[in-house]
Amino acid sequence: MNPDNMFEWANDLFYINRSLTGDGVRKTLLYLKNILPDLLIHEVPSGTVAFDWTVPDEWTIRDAYIADEDGNRVVDFRTNNLHVVGYSEPVDCWLERDELEQYLHSLPDQPEAIPYVTSYYKRQWGFCLTHHQRLSLPQGRYHIVIDTDLKPGVLNYAELILHGETQKEVLLSTYICHPSMANNELSGPVVTTALALWLQRLERRLYTYRIVFIPETIGSIVYLSKNIDQLKRQVIAGFNITCIGDDRCYSYLPSRNGSTLSDQVALHVLLHHTDNNFKCYSWLDRGSDERQYCAPGVDLPIATIMRSKYGEYPEYHTSLDNFDVVTPSGLEGGFIALRRAIEVIEQNIYLKITVFCEPQLGKRGLYPSLSSKVSGEQVRAMMNLISFCDGSRTLLEIADLIEEPFWDLKIIVEKLVAHGLLEKSHIATPQTAYL
Amino acid sequence: MNPDNMFEWANDLFYINRSLTGDGVRKTLLYLKNILPDLLIHEVPSGTVAFDWTVPDEWTIRDAYIADEDGNRVVDFRTNNLHVVGYSEPVDCWLERDELEQYLHSLPDQPEAIPYVTSYYKRQWGFCLTHHQRLSLPQGRYHIVIDTDLKPGVLNYAELILHGETQKEVLLSTYICHPSMANNELSGPVVTTALALWLQRLERRLYTYRIVFIPETIGSIVYLSKNIDQLKRQVIAGFNITCIGDDRCYSYLPSRNGSTLSDQVALHVLLHHTDNNFKCYSWLDRGSDERQYCAPGVDLPIATIMRSKYGEYPEYHTSLDNFDVVTPSGLEGGFIALRRAIEVIEQNIYLKITVFCEPQLGKRGLYPSLSSKVSGEQVRAMMNLISFCDGSRTLLEIADLIEEPFWDLKIIVEKLVAHGLLEKSHIATPQTAYL
Amino acid sequence: MNPDNMFEWANDLFYINRSLTGDGVRKTLLYLKNILPDLLIHEVPSGTVAFDWTVPDEWTIRDAYIADEDGNRVVDFRTNNLHVVGYSEPVDCWLERDELEQYLHSLPDQPEAIPYVTSYYKRQWGFCLTHHQRLSLPQGRYHIVIDTDLKPGVLNYAELILHGETQKEVLLSTYICHPSMANNELSGPVVTTALALWLQRLERRLYTYRIVFIPETIGSIVYLSKNIDQLKRQVIAGFNITCIGDDRCYSYLPSRNGSTLSDQVALHVLLHHTDNNFKCYSWLDRGSDERQYCAPGVDLPIATIMRSKYGEYPEYHTSLDNFDVVTPSGLEGGFIALRRAIEVIEQNIYLKITVFCEPQLGKRGLYPSLSSKVSGEQVRAMMNLISFCDGSRTLLEIADLIEEPFWDLKIIVEKLVAHGLLEKSHIATPQTAYL
Repeated sequence: MNPDNMFEWANDLFYINRSLTGDGVRKTLLYLKNILPDLLIHEVPSGTVAFDWTVPDEWTIRDAYIADEDGNRVVDFRTNNLHVVGYSEPVDCWLERDELEQYLHSLPDQPEAIPYVTSYYKRQWGFCLTHHQRLSLPQGRYHIVIDTDLKPGVLNYAELILHGETQKEVLLSTYICHPSMANNELSGPVVTTALALWLQRLERRLYTYRIVFIPETIGSIVYLSKNIDQLKRQVIAGFNITCIGDDRCYSYLPSRNGSTLSDQVALHVLLHHTDNNFKCYSWLDRGSDERQYCAPGVDLPIATIMRSKYGEYPEYHTSLDNFDVVTPSGLEGGFIALRRAIEVIEQNIYLKITVFCEPQLGKRGLYPSLSSKVSGEQVRAMMNLISFCDGSRTLLEIADLIEEPFWDLKIIVEKLVAHGLLEKSHIATPQTAYL
Repeated sequence: MNPDNMFEWANDLFYINRSLTGDGVRKTLLYLKNILPDLLIHEVPSGTVAFDWTVPDEWTIRDAYIADEDGNRVVDFRTNNLHVVGYSEPVDCWLERDELEQYLHSLPDQPEAIPYVTSYYKRQWGFCLTHHQRLSLPQGRYHIVIDTDLKPGVLNYAELILHGETQKEVLLSTYICHPSMANNELSGPVVTTALALWLQRLERRLYTYRIVFIPETIGSIVYLSKNIDQLKRQVIAGFNITCIGDDRCYSYLPSRNGSTLSDQVALHVLLHHTDNNFKCYSWLDRGSDERQYCAPGVDLPIATIMRSKYGEYPEYHTSLDNFDVVTPSGLEGGFIALRRAIEVIEQNIYLKITVFCEPQLGKRGLYPSLSSKVSGEQVRAMMNLISFCDGSRTLLEIADLIEEPFWDLKIIVEKLVAHGLLEKSHIATPQTAYL
Repeated sequence: MNPDNMFEWANDLFYINRSLTGDGVRKTLLYLKNILPDLLIHEVPSGTVAFDWTVPDEWTIRDAYIADEDGNRVVDFRTNNLHVVGYSEPVDCWLERDELEQYLHSLPDQPEAIPYVTSYYKRQWGFCLTHHQRLSLPQGRYHIVIDTDLKPGVLNYAELILHGETQKEVLLSTYICHPSMANNELSGPVVTTALALWLQRLERRLYTYRIVFIPETIGSIVYLSKNIDQLKRQVIAGFNITCIGDDRCYSYLPSRNGSTLSDQVALHVLLHHTDNNFKCYSWLDRGSDERQYCAPGVDLPIATIMRSKYGEYPEYHTSLDNFDVVTPSGLEGGFIALRRAIEVIEQNIYLKITVFCEPQLGKRGLYPSLSSKVSGEQVRAMMNLISFCDGSRTLLEIADLIEEPFWDLKIIVEKLVAHGLLEKSHIATPQTAYL
């Protein structure tokens, strides 16, 4: 995967005005369908009940601005779609500067940032602007125009199923409801798209992949309400993919359960991918669709691998979350971490040594002929691996026990399997002495 | 509960000369019966066998002193009942200063303190005095008088049963066998009395409360020997109440098991009541009636919440353990900690969310209308609470998981129950998706 | 056991040229059989298959040297048997100094040490010498002679069975395949021999002791291949005995399982024998016969108690591993640690108090009559012990819980048993109240 592709997609999608519903979401999904032709775009009518929630009406925005008495647009939705509070109701009126104040949102601590504000479930309107601009708006009368509709329509989401050898599934979920912001959220859809492309091209997939692009919260609730039976039966692991595009750090957020296969894999990958230099959050720090996927009784095995986590980086939910934050290398690092996580899930297997006591490796040429520090470490890793291949542990468990990257051990495993010294199995079959 | 009441009771009881048996115990129990008219005072004859022990004869002391050749009482039981070794045998003789030495007890490191010494099971006599006084006793002859009896009589204890909705019991045990000392022991009986008054006045009690005032060790052994079957069947939690009246710190001593409901409750209450500023002792630090209540095979779920623990504060078992040590605020803090512990036990319950995925709180007005730091924390606590209400966890377990005080969450729980979003149950009923 | 005996045996055995097979091993075993007449010496023909391995041909060395043009032996096997690479093939040739270089082994970092090098499974030859000597060997022609055979013969090992009251066994294994080195390996066989003598003389042994002297790796694999059924059925604990003779530290290496009885015993003994001053290695640091005894499916409960561990002290596998390293006191300390470990295994038993609540110790004279700091600690240890004698815990578990040495508690246990206060049992029989 060329990281420039991901970066280019993110740039293309950046200026689309996404929200929970509406044209922005559809444009985004159609753009992705162009890359992933098998992507299936669904629509759910407004008013549909999903568990405790109801699909809201569809919001359409055509224009929005604050103009001064001379007709100059001093705040203009066309220059940045963050300027309008999401789901604002329509308005067309004249206000004095003082009256306008209560409808303005800015961040005194980040005076150059336009904040991202929405009001999905309470009817109101407002404008967001930098604090500098707010302070510099002179007294006078202003013409306020927000040209929006909120009418019965649909909520859209998209789904791609990549069948594997088994019906057991890995769920990859990302969201497409935020306007012009790069780490939260465009990094999520573009890395997910790249993963989908990579998965499509694999010669062999053990698991079936269910890849969904949804609006956050209402989207995952709607998706769960339609698919919970199948998801509960089939999903063995999965990731919520968000905030995966900057260069600053890696982050892990656990599932509610905390020790699902997804959690074990995420921790292993981040430990070795980052040389143990990543941030480990708790369930109490959650804030995205794991809230639904891991809710009581839903309890899908969904963990989260991120770069800088939502809510934890200064540009979060502002206009500063742009391509100074998200970079090709940031996206690439996130993509590789998630790809490795999927590879671990695909390749994880129970291992059993086929002989009692240590095997005689010398007679098989399995000792490196040239002795060196590196080869010594490889032999040690091989012997440690073998010492735990008792049929009751998976390669992932062994990798954790002997503190070696799964992907390095995988190479050794294949060599030992080729020599008939290891047996693989999808179920535990403990090694036992004859007795 | 007005803490001044507790303080006043302790002052009233201070000068009574309590011991394992005898009039001092009876006077103390009658004083308490005046406050708690339903208190039942029991007597057990000397010689009664209780497990490995036998109820000792009853000890009566009428007078005791050391007088100089002029008849001046230089050490006088009437001025401080700690001056006589508990259970001293009678004596009336003249001794030289040097001969007297072997019968004197003092503390060189605490020269102003009269130590507390007893000899319940070995016949001997002695006097306790300050080290200063001991050093200043001049040569000469002294008249030694101890006017005591040790004769078959009774051992007294008292019991109050407050019936609740279930026969399951909470045991509160305290002891009444120490003479004039305030933290160890009067803080125990007066805080227990205050708890009994509070419990009596409650509109509703889920559990039955068994409140006992006993002599330490022999009293709890006698009580167990008479009630062990019932206690084993019915007691679900309880506390040994001692050393609960000073202002210096809070302390926790576990049950032998270490993880009974009482232990979980004690740790939770102390953690949040003291902002995690309390001393955590181990079973190996035990020294009071938990030794019997938690003995092998007895194993009642009894933990201990204290302020400064016996054996750990400088005034312990000396005349300095007085009302400079024990204060109204010290008693009140201890009372509140124990009351909270009982409230947690009464209100602890399994909780299950009634919807799949997160509930839509906005439509129910469960989000605070005014946004602030405090309201944000409340929303977070509510969402964290909900995220663990899977029917398999009690409110106490959830409070520990999300690191919030039980009593704060209780308020949120009632709100959510009122909205039909939570179900309470006395047994675990895990939330499951339909499948 | 007089430590001078062990030291003398080690000195006697030091100059014998042991290898995997051959006369050196036989001489060593015959020397030990002189001390332990019941020792049974076994032989296994070359070519015998043992699991994945085959017993190698027997190696005989008669002479080996490098001589200069004048016939002076500049490197001579007769002065130190480490000078020849173990299992060297025969050679008789003249080489230039430069040609000789590739056959020489020395340690630049330890220029005064002759390294220990073997090539059991690949045919080659070589000489080992100090780095100083290597650098000082002048140009010129050298006469190289290695007079060896590698022919079908036998592999030898020895076994001593000391029957106990039960057929359950404790396995003690040590190896006898290293030439002139003292800590690794002679400390192992001599301490094992001393333990065997001590065990022989015991009036009573609960367990049967299986004591084996084998060549490392191939020997334990051969031994396992012949005895695995019986070992799996009968061995309840055991130790691999190696590197047990220097004064520098104590070390523990776990079994693969990590929490077998042997592990618990080893940790307890080292903790208290060394006042918690010992090195704790992991299974990943293994390197001796535990690799076979604890292999997947073999899984015998074998742990290792050492002094300075193989691979971890500077003289390891060089001529410097001599009697500057191994001392009488070093051997004695190791012997005592292992003897204590065996005593713990022999004496470990479930304990149950025979009364409810604490027993009345005073009436039985079980309180020390003279009160002192030491006696106070003894009473506390006794009361702590009693508090855990609930029939569900062994003395070893209790000793760990109350942080007292097993051997100190054993004395108290016998006193309490004599007073009828404790019952011993080989199985768990939990104390329960009557109900």
